[in-house]
Amino acid sequence: AAATFSQVALAPCSFSGCHLQEVVYKLNALLVCCCFVFCRRPPKLRQISWLLFVFFSSDIEISRAQSPKAVDVLAKEIGLLTDEIEIYGQTKAKVRLSLLERLKDQPDGKYVLVAGITPTPLGEGKSTVTIGLVQALTAHLKINSFACLRQPSQGPTFGVKGGAAGGGYAQVIPMEEFNLHLTGDIHAITAANNLLAAAIDARILHENTQSDKALYNRLVPVVKGVRGFSSIQLARLRRLGINKTDPETLTEEEISRFVRLDIDPSTITWQRVVDTNDRFLRKITIGQANTEKGFVRQAQFDIAVASEIMAILALTTSLEDMKERLGKIVVANDKKGEPVTAEDLGVTGALAVLMKDAIKPTLMQTLEGTPVFVHAGPFANIAHGNSSILADKIALKLVGEKGFVVTEAGFGADIGMEKFFNIKCRASGLVPSVVVLVATVRALKMHGGGPSVSAGAPLKKEYTEENLQLVADGCCNLQKQIQITQLFGVPVVVALNVFKTDSPAEVDLVCKIAKQSGAFDAVPCNHWSDGGRGAVKLAQAVEKAANQKSSFKYLYSLETIAQKVYGAEDIELSPAAQSQIDRYTRQGFGKLPICMAKTHLSLSHQPEKKGVPTGFILPISDVRASIGAGFIYPLVGTMSTMPGLPTRPCFYDIDLDPVTEEVKGLF
Amino acid sequence: AAATFSQVALAPCSFSGCHLQEVVYKLNALLVCCCFVFCRRPPKLRQISWLLFVFFSSDIEISRAQSPKAVDVLAKEIGLLTDEIEIYGQTKAKVRLSLLERLKDQPDGKYVLVAGITPTPLGEGKSTVTIGLVQALTAHLKINSFACLRQPSQGPTFGVKGGAAGGGYAQVIPMEEFNLHLTGDIHAITAANNLLAAAIDARILHENTQSDKALYNRLVPVVKGVRGFSSIQLARLRRLGINKTDPETLTEEEISRFVRLDIDPSTITWQRVVDTNDRFLRKITIGQANTEKGFVRQAQFDIAVASEIMAILALTTSLEDMKERLGKIVVANDKKGEPVTAEDLGVTGALAVLMKDAIKPTLMQTLEGTPVFVHAGPFANIAHGNSSILADKIALKLVGEKGFVVTEAGFGADIGMEKFFNIKCRASGLVPSVVVLVATVRALKMHGGGPSVSAGAPLKKEYTEENLQLVADGCCNLQKQIQITQLFGVPVVVALNVFKTDSPAEVDLVCKIAKQSGAFDAVPCNHWSDGGRGAVKLAQAVEKAANQKSSFKYLYSLETIAQKVYGAEDIELSPAAQSQIDRYTRQGFGKLPICMAKTHLSLSHQPEKKGVPTGFILPISDVRASIGAGFIYPLVGTMSTMPGLPTRPCFYDIDLDPVTEEVKGLF
Repeated sequence: AAATFSQVALAPCSFSGCHLQEVVYKLNALLVCCCFVFCRRPPKLRQISWLLFVFFSSDIEISRAQSPKAVDVLAKEIGLLTDEIEIYGQTKAKVRLSLLERLKDQPDGKYVLVAGITPTPLGEGKSTVTIGLVQALTAHLKINSFACLRQPSQGPTFGVKGGAAGGGYAQVIPMEEFNLHLTGDIHAITAANNLLAAAIDARILHENTQSDKALYNRLVPVVKGVRGFSSIQLARLRRLGINKTDPETLTEEEISRFVRLDIDPSTITWQRVVDTNDRFLRKITIGQANTEKGFVRQAQFDIAVASEIMAILALTTSLEDMKERLGKIVVANDKKGEPVTAEDLGVTGALAVLMKDAIKPTLMQTLEGTPVFVHAGPFANIAHGNSSILADKIALKLVGEKGFVVTEAGFGADIGMEKFFNIKCRASGLVPSVVVLVATVRALKMHGGGPSVSAGAPLKKEYTEENLQLVADGCCNLQKQIQITQLFGVPVVVALNVFKTDSPAEVDLVCKIAKQSGAFDAVPCNHWSDGGRGAVKLAQAVEKAANQKSSFKYLYSLETIAQKVYGAEDIELSPAAQSQIDRYTRQGFGKLPICMAKTHLSLSHQPEKKGVPTGFILPISDVRASIGAGFIYPLVGTMSTMPGLPTRPCFYDIDLDPVTEEVKGLF
Repeated sequence: AAATFSQVALAPCSFSGCHLQEVVYKLNALLVCCCFVFCRRPPKLRQISWLLFVFFSSDIEISRAQSPKAVDVLAKEIGLLTDEIEIYGQTKAKVRLSLLERLKDQPDGKYVLVAGITPTPLGEGKSTVTIGLVQALTAHLKINSFACLRQPSQGPTFGVKGGAAGGGYAQVIPMEEFNLHLTGDIHAITAANNLLAAAIDARILHENTQSDKALYNRLVPVVKGVRGFSSIQLARLRRLGINKTDPETLTEEEISRFVRLDIDPSTITWQRVVDTNDRFLRKITIGQANTEKGFVRQAQFDIAVASEIMAILALTTSLEDMKERLGKIVVANDKKGEPVTAEDLGVTGALAVLMKDAIKPTLMQTLEGTPVFVHAGPFANIAHGNSSILADKIALKLVGEKGFVVTEAGFGADIGMEKFFNIKCRASGLVPSVVVLVATVRALKMHGGGPSVSAGAPLKKEYTEENLQLVADGCCNLQKQIQITQLFGVPVVVALNVFKTDSPAEVDLVCKIAKQSGAFDAVPCNHWSDGGRGAVKLAQAVEKAANQKSSFKYLYSLETIAQKVYGAEDIELSPAAQSQIDRYTRQGFGKLPICMAKTHLSLSHQPEKKGVPTGFILPISDVRASIGAGFIYPLVGTMSTMPGLPTRPCFYDIDLDPVTEEVKGLF
């Protein structure tokens, strides 16, 4: 049976100490102030900054005010054996997949998805709700729970968005570890992705500049007097239908087929990646050095988390399955229109070696000492935007039958949740018990016709003063997202993430409309300011909803998603999209799930259409494929896969104190 | 006082068990053979492969046959406190710099450098000598010792060269950890390097597309009603001589100077990096997407270890010093010809944050359980090619006064050792006690006029059969490298790395000539086949030599290095080189040490000139600067900073067993 987290884990939770520390700070600050007043000296700039720090303490300061427990202690508390973890520093550990085998007979816990209404560009706090909810469940209600989160990209951390560890008193700690290299998974993905990219261009160059015989002599060299195929080459021979194992017996025609992948450079879909917001790499020309002999071509870099290898990491169910998916990655077509894979390039084993540690989920903790898995973070538009199946599976075993695993879907429910159900649950076979739908008064007002909201600009007064009409009008979006959830047959609890400018009447109104619209329950949450304590009501509602009967079902076909989920009248395929669909069908990929690449800022394809747009035709401009990850992705408009740096990037405020080693300015 | 490594650490060394295991393997194989003979069935290919495996067991199999001890046990054995290490998995740990403060009054151990004669392209085994020597010292002579090694790039691991963990019975284990991500330092360097690169181009774009006022409003925004400079901006104001702290008080002219770095795109020297052999990125055009509004320019990617940030990591002496060096990095000139730095871009703090863990050396172990630091691995041509000063400093404290720290210089002594003395020792203030000069009969025969040696091609018979004349003729190179060492006033012990094809007469001849040429001693080493036992005589010679008086001195100026070290008649500066020297002198960088970028395959600038070339003029084609690392590097010919993938890259043989999780094919 599962360990009881609450008994061992959270008795010594120093959360309240955290508040105490803050009080001590503020008292100190007051003393300093008085000192200034009585001494009648103007305070110096440094002193002012310090005062500001104390009164407006930010997420990272809250994070630091709490000392995380040692991760080996946490691991023991939640029932992990010593040889099932690999410790990385004091506060992070990788968990071995062998645990799944040991606990295979243990029943799974309840599976909860946190999704959201159509958000403003500022985000509505799904991560904080996820963390607040597990803090409430485990630290306050003494129910085993686990949060399974995505690893954030370092691009946005240093760019516009900042970190992604939650916020206020609902955070993963230490937040600087969470937001930086973590245990190196994204770096491993970058290395694997770029090795494959380098292999493609190098292979084209070598094939273009060598005869069949020269290629064969190099690919199958005589080593210590013996000439032999490697196992990866033997596999290629079998795929080509050449049932020979002695390199000396191949005919010239067989040699030619063996040595030439004949990649058509214009069909290459595999891009290089970096985990940096580097807009100048969005479109580049490569191969311009003399050594590449004129084989230039246009290419691009994507942000690392947009790599198909990230999507594979998120969807894989074992090391064996991951290796198989890596081999299946289609990188281009050959000149006959047949797909060329990573396996054809002989790089499957190397990719698997580079990813061997990344496949293990990383264990961290919330501000209240409850366990968190951080694992995978695929793009939510061109991929499915959900954390890993493996982390969820392990967590479901660890919490035990009565426990809860809470995970988060990217974007609004129309995209993130839809993909969670249709792609992630399909791959894992796991059945969700409850959906928590996060809403804010701010986003609802926007849907009700409020002025536009954008990052960096101050909020208009509609958002800071009570306006019941805007809220009431905007609830149509909430209602629609509730209905979408119900299409999948899963009970929904609405979590209203309360901001301090929301009036009690606004909060009550949202909850009332949510319940009228079919939500099992709707509760205001104050986890940002109060931690788990502020999400206890939500936790109680989720626990009740989980006892409801879930009649979960997949909902499919491109048309169904467009019409039933988005509310489109129909879809319209561009000629390019149609011809890609025909090609994928011919290549045998016609049965793969569909991963829609659509804006998250509207239910429709037009970000400016708020509320519940109707009467639109969804245009599919192109269709692409992630064969290793196992889905086809229709593009609804252009999707940027490389963010840029703004004029004043986040890194302006990020600093390291070389004496205390403390990180400043991450938030 | 230092812990006594030998008492605690190596009693349970299972090295002999390693041999035993091999014997068991071979007996098993014999049984299988007999079985075939008696059953008269032709053995299947798979079985043959298995037999081959057993009889020609490779480095990774030897590595795996030995179980490494847990790294926390090793750490305790060598006197590290629990809070001085950060464990990464079972076999790696980062060591905190706080240890230097704790042990500051402890005397340093002896400092030994392993350098080599001018090598063949196959390398002459400096790493195996380094590891064999510490295994001999600690596991056999019971003298505390530490090996300090460079972290290898993943590029060559998957490209041509393969891994770099030593070889045979002188290895760092587990070799797959050593050769892959390790503790993420190179990934951190890549992230920091590329953030700085992205910041440069984004800044140029924003300056080109915005007015002074718009830039100022974005760079110094009103936040919660208050407008203030960040600390990094205040520092910039001070550098500009603007002594103001209130953003509202700057004049228009001051605003313009503050907001515009005015980078001249044609002078950008900061390149992007990847840790992959990707030849198509040697020359590229960036910024071709519409969003970049036509600001295209030519650029390149280097291999990650060629980043100046890697050189900084290797030369830094503290977190504070690293942050200062990062800020000083010159990335370009402005339109007036003044240097633009990372600090000007406001990114110093972010770079330091990305590098905060990379600055801690990684602790691993040899095959015989003795301690190893792996830390930094800068390019040996455009940088100084030595592992980190911090690892050496920590190791020198840990081994204690009577102990030894053995580290390795890249390339031949003419480059690697020269840079070790003139750049690394100058930055650290450490004084070397002994140089071990590694030679092989193979390389000496090449210098004596033997046929050319190249990777991949079988060795000619001159190298596999006794040929005393070639050896005698080639010893001129050994003699010259001994003389170079003596110029610096450090005693030299020649280590002849013995191959099984070397005849006893050849071995004796080399040792005789070496001693005649001024070496303190010269001994044959068999560490590859015998581990530390095979290097005991070397260890004894090194111990004796360390008691000699070292009269170490720097040896400097471009001319001195060219003439006294390389044996050139003179140097010849190209006009470009001369104008760069003038510019650096004008910018105040004229006093920096010089880091020669020269081929390692000859004492001269022409790789085909073997032995001891004379009568040549050393041409300096260009001069560049790594201001953060703190050196100027004159280019002697073209230096490639991005290797390529061959037709049959190493990755063809690399695989992962998804059941046992074992890595195959790394060597």
